[in-house]
Amino acid sequence: MKVLVINAGSSSLKYQLYDMREETVMASGRVERIGMDSSILTHEVPGRQEVRDVSEILDHVTAVKRVVDILVDPQHGVLSAINEIQAVGHRVVHGGESFKQSVIVTPEVKLEIRRLFDLAPLHNPAHMMGISAVEANLPNVEQVVVFDTAFHQTMPPTAYLYPIPMVLYRRHKIRRYGFHGTSHHYVSDQAAQLLGKPLSEVKMVSCHIGNGASVTAIKEGQSVDTSMGLTPLEGLMMGTRSGDIDPAIVPFTMNKEELTLSEVNSMLNKHSGLLAISGISSDMREIVQGMDEGDKNAQLAFDMYVYRLRKYIGAYAAAMNGLDVLIFTAGVGENSDRLRASVCEGLTFLGIELDEELNKKRSKEARYISTENSRIKVLVVPTNEELLIARDTYALVQQAKQA
Amino acid sequence: MKVLVINAGSSSLKYQLYDMREETVMASGRVERIGMDSSILTHEVPGRQEVRDVSEILDHVTAVKRVVDILVDPQHGVLSAINEIQAVGHRVVHGGESFKQSVIVTPEVKLEIRRLFDLAPLHNPAHMMGISAVEANLPNVEQVVVFDTAFHQTMPPTAYLYPIPMVLYRRHKIRRYGFHGTSHHYVSDQAAQLLGKPLSEVKMVSCHIGNGASVTAIKEGQSVDTSMGLTPLEGLMMGTRSGDIDPAIVPFTMNKEELTLSEVNSMLNKHSGLLAISGISSDMREIVQGMDEGDKNAQLAFDMYVYRLRKYIGAYAAAMNGLDVLIFTAGVGENSDRLRASVCEGLTFLGIELDEELNKKRSKEARYISTENSRIKVLVVPTNEELLIARDTYALVQQAKQA
Repeated sequence: MKVLVINAGSSSLKYQLYDMREETVMASGRVERIGMDSSILTHEVPGRQEVRDVSEILDHVTAVKRVVDILVDPQHGVLSAINEIQAVGHRVVHGGESFKQSVIVTPEVKLEIRRLFDLAPLHNPAHMMGISAVEANLPNVEQVVVFDTAFHQTMPPTAYLYPIPMVLYRRHKIRRYGFHGTSHHYVSDQAAQLLGKPLSEVKMVSCHIGNGASVTAIKEGQSVDTSMGLTPLEGLMMGTRSGDIDPAIVPFTMNKEELTLSEVNSMLNKHSGLLAISGISSDMREIVQGMDEGDKNAQLAFDMYVYRLRKYIGAYAAAMNGLDVLIFTAGVGENSDRLRASVCEGLTFLGIELDEELNKKRSKEARYISTENSRIKVLVVPTNEELLIARDTYALVQQAKQA
Repeated sequence: MKVLVINAGSSSLKYQLYDMREETVMASGRVERIGMDSSILTHEVPGRQEVRDVSEILDHVTAVKRVVDILVDPQHGVLSAINEIQAVGHRVVHGGESFKQSVIVTPEVKLEIRRLFDLAPLHNPAHMMGISAVEANLPNVEQVVVFDTAFHQTMPPTAYLYPIPMVLYRRHKIRRYGFHGTSHHYVSDQAAQLLGKPLSEVKMVSCHIGNGASVTAIKEGQSVDTSMGLTPLEGLMMGTRSGDIDPAIVPFTMNKEELTLSEVNSMLNKHSGLLAISGISSDMREIVQGMDEGDKNAQLAFDMYVYRLRKYIGAYAAAMNGLDVLIFTAGVGENSDRLRASVCEGLTFLGIELDEELNKKRSKEARYISTENSRIKVLVVPTNEELLIARDTYALVQQAKQA
């Protein structure tokens, strides 16, 4: 079966076409600047040269049409006919409390995703455009939605409720949802495989450290706490997001700087984090380069970032009363040995001992970076959210066929 | 030397008179409802019956006058003349970055406390009224100010800076200050005495758990991190304060519920925490009673409170890469064996083993509540901020005399 995975943003659309027999990527790419002039389609087939095509793509329906066209294109394509695509899986950021796992798209599901617009105003509407665009182009193909929040729906109320008036939960569903769930789920499964142990026997902390970053406490294979909250702002210091701050800073700053609600939101989400402290960049590679050139603000940004991450790892070990496995994943987590070394060197009291050489080795495979004697195993596990979306999509569609 | 300790609020004034030879309290009391009709003076001398006096006290000058009067009153007093009071020590909540320790009051000091009104608009103005009122009544007596924030001025920038635009720190001094410093300082000193070890050799986490609550990481006798931040709102879940939440909840709620800045502040400071979740009370004793009567919301409030505290202890162990001593203090910390037991039973992985009997024993002395084998020592240390204020006042005034 061929499965097309789609991640639709408000002005972009990423895709991967999977052959599920061996879980191989047949083609992948992205459409950027949808609705603006000179939209760009970038298409890649393993072993061939990348194709770039600039044209006018005014909406998501046209964007999906272009993707389908290039997938069956005699020169650049990989399919002989559209109907080879047997299912489409979508990444959806917010599943609220309604979606505890991936589901096949039905009118009810679409209605519910719409109801959740309020909780993810920047994401869910774009995902809905992606779903509708696929419907318009591939009317007979089953679609599946895979939620960033679903994996965290196992959190107990102790972890997901905020100590604020309960009416805010009842009326507006203000609670911790958490994000990056597909990634935390995927890497914890991979880690269990590598360890050769069932998930039920290990306490894990998974650190998804990219431009956005979150930490999850995973016990018996289930998310029991996670650092992102109602929105992706809470938790770790990130590329441009503040993460945790005194909530009183919000009204204090609005008052002092005469900011509106959307300005303070924008400040905390887009102008904070590594960028604000370093004054250089939100990109960890440039921060590390700055440090190496003796830039003190870059060093401070790095130190704060590491310090805050370390505290979360300690907090989640306490949340589970123990820790067996620490996982690093996503852009920074997979690639920055400096970050991993700095985090771990401050956690030797937990029984973490990093193997310097293993930590420096570059690889695309899941691997140990702790010493053999390290009581807590430290792993780097490359994440692959698209593959998990493809797997969920494949499984649900197969199930539906058999039913 | 006799030292009078004063804690002035906007409509109240608490006092203790110390004889510093043996550090004994000669008299203590409070004036309540200053500026309202029927103000109340409550005065207590150890070994005698409490005195209550209702009269009109319209300002702090009159309040201090009444206190002085009753201290020299032939029937209720303990002094033969006013001039026996040789120094007055004031509790001041906010010392900003200017005050890293207690100081003798000078015109410059008063000016600086005034400059800090912005950071503690509810507290510092009231403290200033207290200082002026003492000046008016006891013009020749030296005064000393002891700051709640001073002990935390040893935090490194990694801990005190927020990952938000640096201009907010430069322009408005938005950073972590921390509070309850006098208490954390006092109990860590007491703990070191009990342990018979120099402070330089132990990593401590001190939990000041009262109606307000904060946790401090103490390394080599210095505060290296603390849970309260720019304001006392950040950190632990408290009686009526939320503590940490997704900062995005502030604008989200303001928008949904059409709240003003001061309404959202009031919601998070006065209508959140234990009170919001239990729906019963902000008082831990009533929460525990509710639990025992099978109230599920009281149980949930208790569980969230304990869970969040446990995570902070884990985080601060990680912040220091180790932990030797865990201290409980203040109203709830000193008196709720239930709270202490629940916190510790989830932290056995750190090497904490509570002695159930020692934990249940009631005493006003600093004491161990962990077993002899417990790798981390757990202590209950009754706090005494007034005594520390008296000591600092005494020491500074003695120093000044000798100089």
